[in-house]
Amino acid sequence: MRKAKKREMTAGEGPLFAAGVDVGGTKVSTALFDSGGRMFARAKQPLDRGSGEAAAGQVARVLRELGEEAVRAGGRVKAAAVCVPGIVYQADGLVWAPNVPGWIHFPLQGRLEGAVPFPVLIESDRAAYVSGEAWRGAARGARDAVFLAVGTGIGAGIISGGRLIRGAEDISGAVGWFALRPEFREEYAEMGCFEAEASGTGVSRRARHLLESGVSSEMIRLAGGRIADVTAETVAAAARLNDPPARAIMAETASTLAMGIANIVSLLNPKVIVLGGGLFQAADLLLEPIRKEIKKWAQPLAAKDLEVAVSTLGEDAGLYGCGKLAWDLSKGE
Amino acid sequence: MRKAKKREMTAGEGPLFAAGVDVGGTKVSTALFDSGGRMFARAKQPLDRGSGEAAAGQVARVLRELGEEAVRAGGRVKAAAVCVPGIVYQADGLVWAPNVPGWIHFPLQGRLEGAVPFPVLIESDRAAYVSGEAWRGAARGARDAVFLAVGTGIGAGIISGGRLIRGAEDISGAVGWFALRPEFREEYAEMGCFEAEASGTGVSRRARHLLESGVSSEMIRLAGGRIADVTAETVAAAARLNDPPARAIMAETASTLAMGIANIVSLLNPKVIVLGGGLFQAADLLLEPIRKEIKKWAQPLAAKDLEVAVSTLGEDAGLYGCGKLAWDLSKGE
Repeated sequence: MRKAKKREMTAGEGPLFAAGVDVGGTKVSTALFDSGGRMFARAKQPLDRGSGEAAAGQVARVLRELGEEAVRAGGRVKAAAVCVPGIVYQADGLVWAPNVPGWIHFPLQGRLEGAVPFPVLIESDRAAYVSGEAWRGAARGARDAVFLAVGTGIGAGIISGGRLIRGAEDISGAVGWFALRPEFREEYAEMGCFEAEASGTGVSRRARHLLESGVSSEMIRLAGGRIADVTAETVAAAARLNDPPARAIMAETASTLAMGIANIVSLLNPKVIVLGGGLFQAADLLLEPIRKEIKKWAQPLAAKDLEVAVSTLGEDAGLYGCGKLAWDLSKGE
Repeated sequence: MRKAKKREMTAGEGPLFAAGVDVGGTKVSTALFDSGGRMFARAKQPLDRGSGEAAAGQVARVLRELGEEAVRAGGRVKAAAVCVPGIVYQADGLVWAPNVPGWIHFPLQGRLEGAVPFPVLIESDRAAYVSGEAWRGAARGARDAVFLAVGTGIGAGIISGGRLIRGAEDISGAVGWFALRPEFREEYAEMGCFEAEASGTGVSRRARHLLESGVSSEMIRLAGGRIADVTAETVAAAARLNDPPARAIMAETASTLAMGIANIVSLLNPKVIVLGGGLFQAADLLLEPIRKEIKKWAQPLAAKDLEVAVSTLGEDAGLYGCGKLAWDLSKGE
């Protein structure tokens, strides 16, 4: 552990740490954080997908190991936070994270209480992402920030006035369901209009649909001749080669993303929007058109001083967020 | 004053009141409230539109008069809140309310401090509306509620997790700027897409545009033969007479309103949406289609338990909200 002993010394008890655990659909990432946001003992392991109980047991075990790590550094863990890819019902401690086998209204809070010798908060990954970016990332210090994750799906984490926005039933931020086209299409019923049009899944679907109509494009060559293998990455790569159909799809995607972001801006007036998730691997193609078109749609004063930034923490945003949320928990915030 | 002496008796000092002042573009409404939300001494007077200073002087005067009213009832005012039709910059106490002459970045907070013998909070009317409805109206007791005002414009007041959402620059709730159509139209630049399509102004504009194309409709008769005199009220009246063009316009308006409301629901997961403003005089035509179409667009879990209600406080929503905000101020909330 890097210089941990020098951090957060408290008379007689050594350095204090917050523990963070980011549970994804395939892996579990873990780290300790001092109160200034420095990360220690970062590690990653495959998720135990055997059952809901097995995954919960793994989370309890890595939390205890983080506690032991802090003790080896001469200190202790004050509090921990765990983020999960789904909904966390704060009232009863149940989690709904369908990418983890068995975590459909699974009592994760109950399984961790008693199994871990410090307080543990459970939050959605979206809440962790925005907390992490507002602590140590692209929204550092902002009291009004939104993290927009665009990958296979679209979701948002929201901080307003310095507080996480959870909603009446802990399902705020479901912006993939934004209505942005007056004509309802069949695929909107499954995932929402915004997600169907502008997620990575939506981009590849639209590209394949276009290519199946017989349009010639670099996309087909890049996908080894198989239209079915065209992904959002293929579209971005072809757009970088100035392939007109690919450029048109990326431009339309940027326009739709700008509409969705503008709606967040007009409603919440955030100071910073942080863009993350797989689709922003193509930030070189998307960021400038998005910035320009937000100004076309959003409330002009809210758009004027808005900062639109790409995530600087990347895949560590959730871990940092857990660190911040755990420190807040330890202070009773 | 109705039974005021019986309310909120505190040993030795008589009943305590909060004072509310709702400043509109043409009138000033005033009342006292006990902590249970009972209203006393409600009054209304024309706004002094002579200058920004004259209007501010009038607000200070009615606040002092409310204080004297409380003393006549044997008690006193603990705190007051004033709502204004525009933006309130909390950091410096400036208001931007273009419907009040001279209130363009006008230092209202500064003018009231010293002129009134109790603490005074200034808030936007939108914030007051949602606070009033969550206190004593259609969202009573809700910690997650949104007031959507649809009249000549469209705006929203937001409470999330029991707190007002203000935004980084106090301009949250500008939902009139929601992007709901991918094709940008000239009129969106002035007022936003949602407002251009679905406000009272938008409804009458769309109706006149249709009628100018030569369509025959009851709307023309109801407007005395003058297409230029067709208003949203005319459209609603003709729709109630089963006039097909008017019904089509109201149906399209309901669809667009449902898209905008669905976007609020997916982002914030409120428990209650309260609909107010002049257009909901036509709630008989709009409410059921809106409820139905929200479910089509919004995140399904967030839509499932959502309550969509018409304002029960009507034109008193702002006054009640000021009463609530003043009580919160007096308690340091």
